[in-house]
Amino acid sequence: MNGAESLVRTLVASGVDVCFANPGTSEMHFVAALDAVDGMRPVLGLFEGVVTGAADGYGRMAEKPACTLLHLGPGLANGTANLHNARRAATPIVNVVGDHATYHAQYDAPLASDIDVLAGYASAWTHASTSARSVAADAARAVRASLEPPGCVATLILPADTAWLPAEGVAPALPRPTPAAPSDAAIARVAAALARNERSAILIRGAALKERGLNAAGRVAARTGTRIMCDTFAPRIQQGAGRFAVERIPYFAEQIVAFLADLDELILVGATAPVAFFAYPDKPSWPVPANCTIRVLAHPHEDGTLALEALADEIGAPAGSAPLAERTLPDMPSPGALDAFSAGTIVTRLLPENAIVSDEAATSRVGLGALHEAAPHDLLSLTGGSIGSMIPVATGAAVACPDRKVVSLQGDGGAMYTLQALWTQARERLDVTTVIFANRSYAILNVELMRVGAAAGGAKALSMLDLGDPALDWVKLAEGMGVPAVRAETRESFADAFARAMRERGPFLIEAALAPRS
Amino acid sequence: MNGAESLVRTLVASGVDVCFANPGTSEMHFVAALDAVDGMRPVLGLFEGVVTGAADGYGRMAEKPACTLLHLGPGLANGTANLHNARRAATPIVNVVGDHATYHAQYDAPLASDIDVLAGYASAWTHASTSARSVAADAARAVRASLEPPGCVATLILPADTAWLPAEGVAPALPRPTPAAPSDAAIARVAAALARNERSAILIRGAALKERGLNAAGRVAARTGTRIMCDTFAPRIQQGAGRFAVERIPYFAEQIVAFLADLDELILVGATAPVAFFAYPDKPSWPVPANCTIRVLAHPHEDGTLALEALADEIGAPAGSAPLAERTLPDMPSPGALDAFSAGTIVTRLLPENAIVSDEAATSRVGLGALHEAAPHDLLSLTGGSIGSMIPVATGAAVACPDRKVVSLQGDGGAMYTLQALWTQARERLDVTTVIFANRSYAILNVELMRVGAAAGGAKALSMLDLGDPALDWVKLAEGMGVPAVRAETRESFADAFARAMRERGPFLIEAALAPRS
Repeated sequence: MNGAESLVRTLVASGVDVCFANPGTSEMHFVAALDAVDGMRPVLGLFEGVVTGAADGYGRMAEKPACTLLHLGPGLANGTANLHNARRAATPIVNVVGDHATYHAQYDAPLASDIDVLAGYASAWTHASTSARSVAADAARAVRASLEPPGCVATLILPADTAWLPAEGVAPALPRPTPAAPSDAAIARVAAALARNERSAILIRGAALKERGLNAAGRVAARTGTRIMCDTFAPRIQQGAGRFAVERIPYFAEQIVAFLADLDELILVGATAPVAFFAYPDKPSWPVPANCTIRVLAHPHEDGTLALEALADEIGAPAGSAPLAERTLPDMPSPGALDAFSAGTIVTRLLPENAIVSDEAATSRVGLGALHEAAPHDLLSLTGGSIGSMIPVATGAAVACPDRKVVSLQGDGGAMYTLQALWTQARERLDVTTVIFANRSYAILNVELMRVGAAAGGAKALSMLDLGDPALDWVKLAEGMGVPAVRAETRESFADAFARAMRERGPFLIEAALAPRS
Repeated sequence: MNGAESLVRTLVASGVDVCFANPGTSEMHFVAALDAVDGMRPVLGLFEGVVTGAADGYGRMAEKPACTLLHLGPGLANGTANLHNARRAATPIVNVVGDHATYHAQYDAPLASDIDVLAGYASAWTHASTSARSVAADAARAVRASLEPPGCVATLILPADTAWLPAEGVAPALPRPTPAAPSDAAIARVAAALARNERSAILIRGAALKERGLNAAGRVAARTGTRIMCDTFAPRIQQGAGRFAVERIPYFAEQIVAFLADLDELILVGATAPVAFFAYPDKPSWPVPANCTIRVLAHPHEDGTLALEALADEIGAPAGSAPLAERTLPDMPSPGALDAFSAGTIVTRLLPENAIVSDEAATSRVGLGALHEAAPHDLLSLTGGSIGSMIPVATGAAVACPDRKVVSLQGDGGAMYTLQALWTQARERLDVTTVIFANRSYAILNVELMRVGAAAGGAKALSMLDLGDPALDWVKLAEGMGVPAVRAETRESFADAFARAMRERGPFLIEAALAPRS
């Protein structure tokens, strides 16, 4: 058994059975080991941002890591922006990066580079194997590291000779680390604070945004009147009819200020205090009121769900008392030209039960305001602000959950960063419906150009935000990668196409050609 | 005048007049300054690898830097693989990366990251501006740093408040650094060595691979019998009829060993000794014969052209004695199914005078063996081994040289990494003809899987190298980004399409659908 085989066998033994890959020469033994070992599914991406973004989506839904396979420093570089997003999502990923053979490093061949420096950028754990005899143990440690609560990117650098030289065998799986128990003292402090203050909010992030944690939060809210909030960009939230609905913090700094203005107490569960996404001249970076007390109920490495349940019990909130969202679907929009509002309304109305929604709709999100009253679903958001995340995330989520419909809502600007993910969807016959909200601009930047107080914008400046010359043809782009596609320019045609996509299975893309604003 | 305007005005004053950009919110003042300042041409790319690759191609041809404009750490990450290639090409680039406002960094907003760590990966010079009052001076220093011979990536990190706060004014341009004079002692040593040894070679890299340096090298070769070589992947070489032809070092390690086997002396001009691109079990990493003396005629920061001319004079090689390549075009292939050999032969035969050839054809390069006898042209190669470089490089070269035809020869695997560059070609109406050699596989990896001694390859392993399910439709992909395109499946149709593309102007793509090997 060589190092590569010992690595793959150890990963499988540790529960890692999907490998999103874009390999090169130095990874050929790993690729060969995929044949020798049963139980590892390789999924090819034609660009590394697809690979790492898919691993992010997979990890968010499977709640265990996939591994990646990247080619040397530049391969890691191409995957790094989506590793940044995964870092912000606290997604477990075992990020395997091939390197030159240990003895080859000294020659500074063209592809040589400082991989460990690059790996440190988005990884909480990085290790370069030094011997084929240690690769298996290193892999077991990497899996464990990736699962350290709340989850992280663990990068294992694999010099080529550690893959091809003889190994000793498979390393046993290490115990999966579990979240720390919540602090009784913190629960008592928060219970007391809630008793004293009516103007409080609990901000939740992480696994407590799933149904069980939300149910506990809803009990607390019903008993005390505290508000329950989530970040603007939560990695994953279970929402929709039959679930307790949280308030989503708005995006812009001054909106957040208004949103939090009446708070005396902000209680954190797996979250940090909200801050402005960007700085702007004469606008606050820190939107929490100066006199608001910030209190931690559960740190990110602690079990936020148990903490919320213990809090609900502590304050005497009865089981089953959480108010649950009713299914109050919006009316179908009247016929007419498609715009972001009508497109979002149609998606909200037609979303099937138990879908996974991957959201990078950006400014086109305006029609999705009632999504929390749609059929129950998991909502995945762009966590690190690096656009080009969510088509890959949708791809990985579909690999993790083959029986669920994935709806990928995507602005056209962001879609161009990692459009190659569509090919992987076609190759793997994944059940993903992609909606491209085609407004033919970096629309958010038109807003931001005004907001930052920059000059009104002459032709050259505005041209930097315009994607309309030439217009992108998303039907051709999708078909060019083997994904069937249609363009919809009216509300009726979009509703027809989306309804059909929800009925059928397999990859499909709808270009929602949005009418220019009048 | 704010910092952004002082920055743009200083860049223009320093001779930097093209900005390849993919901006975001934190760069809006820079974008606004593009309007306020005459003389800076902004060129939008829809992915950062396009931006940095285009800056590489521009710098190689313009022999001065373009600037980039990237959005925070993830934007830099997406551009880093092609900065790696630019580093290996020693291309001058002023790499401008926006960052959060200085006072916003403390809040660890979602897009915050360690930009300086990432910048150090491929930049020889990195500086983060700390004040709007210093941005202009920092920009002048960055331009100078990028031009430090032989050229490098100089990264300037621009916190948003240094762009929007008041600046003092424009900084004066700094003198352009010039290559160091060649060493008389080195010239004398090499002259003596050439007199003693008949089995010698001169390996050239950098500006000396242009016509003047090659002419001097040809004089030396004619006088002494020394061989004149270039690297497998030289950043830029002027070749074709009427120029002295160098020998190109082959790609695989064992081929390099055979190629260099008879050498007693290897003389370096701007180059380092050749090494194997990858390590392989039981194959050498260091292909230079053990008893071969390595001697430096000119280091990369020295003037290799002057060194070669001084050497030619020192040994009494007459001016005009360099043997020049004659134009001996290959015959047009007989009609039949298109393959890589016939496609390359047709390109060689029909290449127009003074073209720029951007080469990432990889395994499909087999038909380009006689390119050095074609019409004179500049050949640009993939220098750092990170595929996805040369469509962007072609794009930047076309911006630098609007009056020259750019021929971009590209394997289909590599093309998928940065296909977004086609949109920039359409938007800027650049005169680039792209040929996609579509063999529908990572063909090099099929070779490498055997070469590394990995197992013969079962279905799962081979599937990782296969791009044929589904097949990529390059006509649709190109048209989806506004570039007219045709597919050619026969030699006749490819010749017709390529001839037409050479006659006409503007972006065009030909999918050379290569017949599967029998």
